[in-house]
Amino acid sequence: MEIVKTKVAIIGSGPAGLLLGQLLYKAGIDHVIVEQRSADYVSSRIRAGILEQVSVDLLTEAGVDENLKAHGLPHSGIEILTQGQKHRLDLAALTGGKQVTVYGQTEVTKDLMHAREQAGLSSYYEAHNVQIDDFYTQPKVTFQYQNQPYQIECDFIAGCDGFHGVCRASVPEDKIKTFEKVYPFGWLGVLADVPPVADELIYVQSERGFALCSMRSETRSRYYLQVPLTDHVDNWSDEQFWDELKNRLDPESREKLITGPSIEKSIAPLRSFVTEPMRFGKLFLAGDAAHIVPPTGAKGLNLAASDIAYLSSALIQYYLDGSEQGINEYSEKCLQRVWKAERFSWWMTHLLHRFETESEFDHKIKQAELSYILGSLAGQTTLAENYVGLPYEIKHLSEFQQAS
Amino acid sequence: MEIVKTKVAIIGSGPAGLLLGQLLYKAGIDHVIVEQRSADYVSSRIRAGILEQVSVDLLTEAGVDENLKAHGLPHSGIEILTQGQKHRLDLAALTGGKQVTVYGQTEVTKDLMHAREQAGLSSYYEAHNVQIDDFYTQPKVTFQYQNQPYQIECDFIAGCDGFHGVCRASVPEDKIKTFEKVYPFGWLGVLADVPPVADELIYVQSERGFALCSMRSETRSRYYLQVPLTDHVDNWSDEQFWDELKNRLDPESREKLITGPSIEKSIAPLRSFVTEPMRFGKLFLAGDAAHIVPPTGAKGLNLAASDIAYLSSALIQYYLDGSEQGINEYSEKCLQRVWKAERFSWWMTHLLHRFETESEFDHKIKQAELSYILGSLAGQTTLAENYVGLPYEIKHLSEFQQAS
Repeated sequence: MEIVKTKVAIIGSGPAGLLLGQLLYKAGIDHVIVEQRSADYVSSRIRAGILEQVSVDLLTEAGVDENLKAHGLPHSGIEILTQGQKHRLDLAALTGGKQVTVYGQTEVTKDLMHAREQAGLSSYYEAHNVQIDDFYTQPKVTFQYQNQPYQIECDFIAGCDGFHGVCRASVPEDKIKTFEKVYPFGWLGVLADVPPVADELIYVQSERGFALCSMRSETRSRYYLQVPLTDHVDNWSDEQFWDELKNRLDPESREKLITGPSIEKSIAPLRSFVTEPMRFGKLFLAGDAAHIVPPTGAKGLNLAASDIAYLSSALIQYYLDGSEQGINEYSEKCLQRVWKAERFSWWMTHLLHRFETESEFDHKIKQAELSYILGSLAGQTTLAENYVGLPYEIKHLSEFQQAS
Repeated sequence: MEIVKTKVAIIGSGPAGLLLGQLLYKAGIDHVIVEQRSADYVSSRIRAGILEQVSVDLLTEAGVDENLKAHGLPHSGIEILTQGQKHRLDLAALTGGKQVTVYGQTEVTKDLMHAREQAGLSSYYEAHNVQIDDFYTQPKVTFQYQNQPYQIECDFIAGCDGFHGVCRASVPEDKIKTFEKVYPFGWLGVLADVPPVADELIYVQSERGFALCSMRSETRSRYYLQVPLTDHVDNWSDEQFWDELKNRLDPESREKLITGPSIEKSIAPLRSFVTEPMRFGKLFLAGDAAHIVPPTGAKGLNLAASDIAYLSSALIQYYLDGSEQGINEYSEKCLQRVWKAERFSWWMTHLLHRFETESEFDHKIKQAELSYILGSLAGQTTLAENYVGLPYEIKHLSEFQQAS
């Protein structure tokens, strides 16, 4: 058996794991990444595409912002379409200049993988039978890699292996509490190489259900439709998709919409999920391993980034300052932010989707809420400040280095 | 049969009907008030006690503000107690100087009855078998008064006769749509001649359920407890009430609370209810006849006042300017404001009460929402601006008189 000794074993090579690796590398903290899937699989997953300013800042700190700065599209506003009328929320004006950046998660992953390669850091891709053990005492990770048994002996394990990963599943049942809400619909998403219908995202609330006009670049669009969970992607031809999207849009957008063949089409369920706590001895959960948000509000990737901000800061504090403070506060600090993002994502989902079970009273209340929010500066600001990302405090690497 | 001819027949002598009468009197518009109950009954009902600035302004316009100005308590803030911590919302600072006035509905009613008496205007109290007819053509009101049959022939009927009144019930089913939500709990209220526990209202969210520390004056307190709908007032001794209230308070308030014998004790159910439209030919519904809000947020009396603001303005416009514009817009304008107040009252109720059926996820989301609202200036402002009353535009009598 191959024995590997390191400080931090990162399980999962999605954006959370890769970003943590890059930040630890910058701080000179030895680590490895173990991933069950292949590098190709990981780098081709189609996911979210909206980065909060704090996520952009973190990628900058990690030194992985060249493509992001060159190709990311800064957005200072969003549109909300309700009752056939578009209303623009000027995010920047409402939040003292904050904005979001449209840049696909796929690109973030590729950039991080490229940086890792440049730095000469390798990862164990296609690791099989990954197991984590003894994370309350002397953490170990075992797996099969290229038909060889491996064991990693480490100080800490970072569980960045997603909702279905092995890390959360390895926590004893009596040490963990989970909170969950499943929504009675999914998002049918289409990716197409057509220019987006508008310069900014359009969130659509309509009697026919929710829709979202999003994009990945100036030539690649990402559109979504709320569909019943019972629906299947094979039931949706491209033509049917575009027709239904048009049905949910205002006349002007309908006119402007450029359609084309889908290059990806899938239905994703919507789920809210939180794990408490997020630390179990020397095991940390981060990103989707610890929490899931429905995609409305674009918080998933950003929450993973803020977990990693707290986690990298905590580990740097531990190794550079010899203080366990950040480690001990990790779970509580993350969860404060997580629950606010869960609240916002639930609220956006609730407000903009059509629920078959909602009473006529509930429906009227939702319309009144949208009408209030869009008509009130304070109401608009609550949406905007959550959308661009609530502020949070972490100690950055440069501050530790200055101190020492 | 006694035949009475007038311009406006007002059904119901609660604050809505009385205020409309006073405003019409000021404008020189002939009207009568018909009320099924006795004057004593009407003037002794214990109800709400928080007036928005716009309601105060309307009472001032009606010339019925002497006692209000002398004895009303202006409040520029409220406290919200959650997770054992009190948080003050500075309503005035958050809304550019707006505040609310603590002044019992009972007092408003008495003041309006007194003003009516001073003006030599009488009302048909204890009218029996009140019926309204022909309100799409030539409105008529018939009733028995002092064992005599009466018929009022009028231009318009103002249905200010509350949730159980005859006016809404007289509308043909196919002309009216109603929206309703019933809550699975009630408010157990106690009125006592003891000084209030604090200078401002305390809204209490606790694991044991909602409570409210309110007041009618500096020597009369009004306290409420959320109780199951199955509960009965006879099950609550004064001692039990005070004990349970203390259980829901923070240590400081518990210490300060002065208890005493209740002078009124009752359980009120909570309901959200809206009628659409609010005009049926020459019949207008106003106040509780058209809509009910749960008492959280103190919107009931204030919504009645804003209905009357629109209705009096519409009738004055009709009689002084000969324009039907206000009459035609009455329902839509009222309903825009009504739905926003319904939304706010539902939201405050939802946020602060304990629902037996809520999942652990739902409960955490509520805590996250409260935490967000109280921690964000924009969040605080959304609560404050709704609490003090959203702005609305009406044309006042003085403007009509200037124009003519």
